[in-house]
Parts: sequence; structure tokens; C-alpha cells
Amino acid sequence: MKRAFSVDELKQTAPRLAVERRAVRFQDVDAAGIVFYPRVLEYFSDAYMVALKERGIDLPGMIAGGAIKLPLVHAEADYLLPLRFGDAVEVAVLAPKLGDTSFTVGYRVTTAGGIAAVGQTVHVCIDGARFVPCPLPDDLRSALGAAAPDGGSGAAPR
Amino acid sequence: MKRAFSVDELKQTAPRLAVERRAVRFQDVDAAGIVFYPRVLEYFSDAYMVALKERGIDLPGMIAGGAIKLPLVHAEADYLLPLRFGDAVEVAVLAPKLGDTSFTVGYRVTTAGGIAAVGQTVHVCIDGARFVPCPLPDDLRSALGAAAPDGGSGAAPR
Amino acid sequence: MKRAFSVDELKQTAPRLAVERRAVRFQDVDAAGIVFYPRVLEYFSDAYMVALKERGIDLPGMIAGGAIKLPLVHAEADYLLPLRFGDAVEVAVLAPKLGDTSFTVGYRVTTAGGIAAVGQTVHVCIDGARFVPCPLPDDLRSALGAAAPDGGSGAAPR
Amino acid sequence: MKRAFSVDELKQTAPRLAVERRAVRFQDVDAAGIVFYPRVLEYFSDAYMVALKERGIDLPGMIAGGAIKLPLVHAEADYLLPLRFGDAVEVAVLAPKLGDTSFTVGYRVTTAGGIAAVGQTVHVCIDGARFVPCPLPDDLRSALGAAAPDGGSGAAPR
Repeated sequence: MKRAFSVDELKQTAPRLAVERRAVRFQDVDAAGIVFYPRVLEYFSDAYMVALKERGIDLPGMIAGGAIKLPLVHAEADYLLPLRFGDAVEVAVLAPKLGDTSFTVGYRVTTAGGIAAVGQTVHVCIDGARFVPCPLPDDLRSALGAAAPDGGSGAAPR
Repeated sequence: MKRAFSVDELKQTAPRLAVERRAVRFQDVDAAGIVFYPRVLEYFSDAYMVALKERGIDLPGMIAGGAIKLPLVHAEADYLLPLRFGDAVEVAVLAPKLGDTSFTVGYRVTTAGGIAAVGQTVHVCIDGARFVPCPLPDDLRSALGAAAPDGGSGAAPR
Repeated sequence: MKRAFSVDELKQTAPRLAVERRAVRFQDVDAAGIVFYPRVLEYFSDAYMVALKERGIDLPGMIAGGAIKLPLVHAEADYLLPLRFGDAVEVAVLAPKLGDTSFTVGYRVTTAGGIAAVGQTVHVCIDGARFVPCPLPDDLRSALGAAAPDGGSGAAPR
Repeated sequence: MKRAFSVDELKQTAPRLAVERRAVRFQDVDAAGIVFYPRVLEYFSDAYMVALKERGIDLPGMIAGGAIKLPLVHAEADYLLPLRFGDAVEVAVLAPKLGDTSFTVGYRVTTAGGIAAVGQTVHVCIDGARFVPCPLPDDLRSALGAAAPDGGSGAAPR
């Protein structure tokens, strides 16, 4: 499978949907004393939820309504620096790359020492009644696409 | 609020609904290197789910059906020994004390060194349509009550 | 065991160490669609950590140093209202009740509809070298005790 | 980055280190009613830990000893079928592909309806004193490599 974002893009891309600042929690680390790796994907998810909300996408309402679903079909992360309890991190949600019936969201987790992790998730749009892929609704498309002040393309050279 | 179980009862009561054996997971500990305290309540919950299933209570079906709900209104735990990554534990679900519209479930977590934790949860039975307390259904009552070979009373002297 | 706080105190007590505002996360709910009950104790823990940090208590440093430990020996929660994905909540850490070698922290989770949960945790101070209870260090005592603008009394004049 | 396993390999490869059978827990699902995607990586991690233990690798001891570390530098998953509360799943840890100083572990989660998810994690071996990559210790290499009865190569044609 070809990834929508290269690791270099994830490290360097500027436009972003949202940024969430948080600290590594007491319970986020594992018995080796560093962040348990699936927690970083929870950080991605939390920041993505913040991004949707800030862009006016009402995910709780969308779930209750059921007209479309946006299941995640792929997730990945690269871990570059260890994170420990108390470390302050900034989780950036990068401007998504939009396809017809799917989109890929990029993430970058930065700490005082540099980039600690990057990753991406792929979401498909499913018609809630017929359970087949469907085009991204316009409001979602514009909310995701108009993310960055400079045009919303997460991958364009700059 | 008066507790249905005293800590001594939780330590000593023999009859039990179910026992789940597990090991403390890599991600169950916190930055202090011992089990993060809410995880012990997850252990309680997991073992309770096993108990319901073993007793023939189909909780997924009950949730989907919606005729009754069994929300938890109180939970507590006493922590007696630290638990660390890899420790083998036995989580016992003690025979519940049944009221008319509620019941209290007791729990005991035992490790090689002795009793590591005890606790209890209080559940109320709610009519899913009218959102008022309702009597425990007979099948649930018998499933919970007939737990122990010697009569299922979690508190009786023996 | 006698609780340091009654449920009424937890509902009504004004002075508080810290308040954390958060929203119920996508993954905080369970298959019944409401917050999984141990998550509320995670909310307590997260807010307690914020309180310690705001009061100048360096818990990561304290753990690394190892001179004292502050294990939790009891935790409990009462659940008053269901919480759902997206609900905004305010988690208040109430001014602790301090003993010689232990302290009890109270918590109150409030949502738009009212008080959703209250609870308390009991922590003991342990000498990290000898593994016996020890008096609360003065800096911790003053950090926890000087919580509220009106004097740090968690419940009542004393 | 070139992946050690293709998705097709992850779906089809037979030799495996370990299999863990479990059910989707009450708290593993999210507000959309299906498994929260980072939980699947927790399933991977749990099964990997089981595999290490079954192969005689004492990870708690290794962590305490500190001579080598095995940090994870990449993780990914493809989600093929939704998983719901109560679904029985089988998590297979596939025979790793071993490099000089790193190895990739594959995973496959199967449910009654077929393959629900596949994934892989990349681990590097780090000298605990000098913090540089080091060759995989022989005991780890043989434990990981001798996985399958038919030779342990996760990628060999069959």
C-alpha cells in the first residue's frame, strides 16, 4: 500500500488542522517507563477529534444520525524519541489529503527535544444505509480541506 | 452510604460467581511502576463480564435490546499490595448481595503474596423505556443468586 | 472504614485545589454508550496530577528521587448522571483532609446537567527506604493544605 | 520506508510465534460502537508479550536488568472488519523477520467473519549502557526465530 504521506512530509509539512497541547499522563507510560506505543495513536485520535470540532464537524451528531460513517482502515506511527511522564507535547493534525471517498490525516508529535513521533490514519466514507463507499460530503470536504491559511494542501512544496 | 460488603467480608467470603486469571499487563502500570489504580476496577469489570457470560447472561444482547439497563452507581476498591508488570493475579467475583432493584458485587484480587485488592460495585436495574428503577428480572436474579455451590449468599457465615 | 468525606460533602464543598476542564473522549465510553466507570477515576487522577503540578509538587521528580512514595490505598466513586461522548465536564479536586501520615482527596465531576460523579482517594506517605508510613513532608502538606483562597478547609470549619 | 511484511503476507503467512484468544471487551469499543483503533495495537502488544513469555524471554527481568532495550520504532495496522463488544478474536503473532539489530513482528486478528485486522511492529535492539543499536542477543534471536514448527520464516514461500 502506498502511503499518502512520506515520513519526511510528516516531519516537515506546515499546514495543519489543529494543535493539541497536552502532557504525557501518569498512566500513559508502560513498564519500561516510556509511552506505551498505542497511546500515541490515542493522542492522534484525540487531536483529530479536536480538529473536527474546531472545524464545525459534529461527530457525536454524525454518529447518532448515521447517514454516513467514517471508519478508519489504516493507522501507523513512527516513534522517533521516547516520551516520559510529564513531558509536554504538542500534537499537530496536518492538513488531510483528500480522495474521492477517503482521506488521509497526518500527525506530528513534538516535544522539547524535537519530533517524537509522526503518523497517519486513513478514513473512508461509508453510506450508513447501504454500507458502500460514498463521496465525502461537501461540508466535511471543506472543513478538512480549508484547514491551512495557505491553502490546505498538506503536501505542497513551500 | 452503608456498604453491602465490609472489607473483611471481601477478604474472606468464599462463594464466588467467577474467577478470571490474568497477568498484569505491560501497559497496566503507571510511571511509579505499579498498577495504575483505575486499572484494578477494569479488572473487576472484566471479571464481572466473564461471570455474566458464564451464567448465561447475554449483556451485548441485553444492551442491544434495551428493555432494561444496569448502570453502575458506585464503585470502590481497597489496595493492599502493589502489583507489578507480569504478576499473575486471580480476580474473583464474589456472589452478589441482591436487593429489589439493585445488587452489589464484591471482588477480590489475589496474587502470590496474598490479597492485593478488594472492592465492590453497586448496580441498579432501570426500565429502559421509562427510566425508573425496576425489579431485577428473574433470569438475572437467578443467574446472580445461584452463583455458589453452597447457596450463593456472599455474606453468610460458613 | 469511615470515609473522610460524605457524599454530601463531596457535592457541596467549595474550596478546591484545582479544576480541570475536559470533554468525554470518543474512547471513554463503553459498549453501553456511556462513560466506562473506571474512566471517571482516571479523570480524578488526571486532575489530581494537575493539582500537584499547579501547587509546585514535582511528582515525576519525587518518583525518580524515591525518598517518599505516596501510594493510593483506597478509591471510590458515586455515579450520579450518565456521561456521553462529547460532554463537557469540569473535574474539581477538593481540598484534601490531611492526617499525620495520610490524606484524602475529594473530587466532583460537573456537567451541564449537574453533578455527574463524586469520589475520593486515600493516599499514604511511605518512607521510600524503610517502607513504613512516614509523616507528610512539610512542602507537600502546605501545598495540599493551602489549597483554597479561604483557608483550605475542605468541608467545614475545624 | 519499505515494510518487512506486505498486507498479503500478513493475511496468509502460516508460521506463528503465539496465538492469544480473547473477546472484545466492554471498554474496547468507542462511541461509534466498534473497537477503538488503538486498542487493536494493544491486542498486538498483549499477544507479543504472551509470545515472549512462552518462548522463555523474561521481559520484566530484561527491563529491570537494563543491559539491552527493545524500543518499538514503528507500528501499523490495517482494519478490515469492524469488531464489536463480545466478539471472539484470535490474535496471531507471526514469525518475525530478523535483521541484524532490529526485527519486525507481524500480527493477524481473526474473528468468525474472517480477518479483522493485520499489522506489524518494528523493534530495535539498543545497548542499555551506550544507547546505540546492538546485535540481537542470541537467546532472543533463537527464541524469535525458532518460532514455527516448519522453520520459523514468516516470509518464505509456501
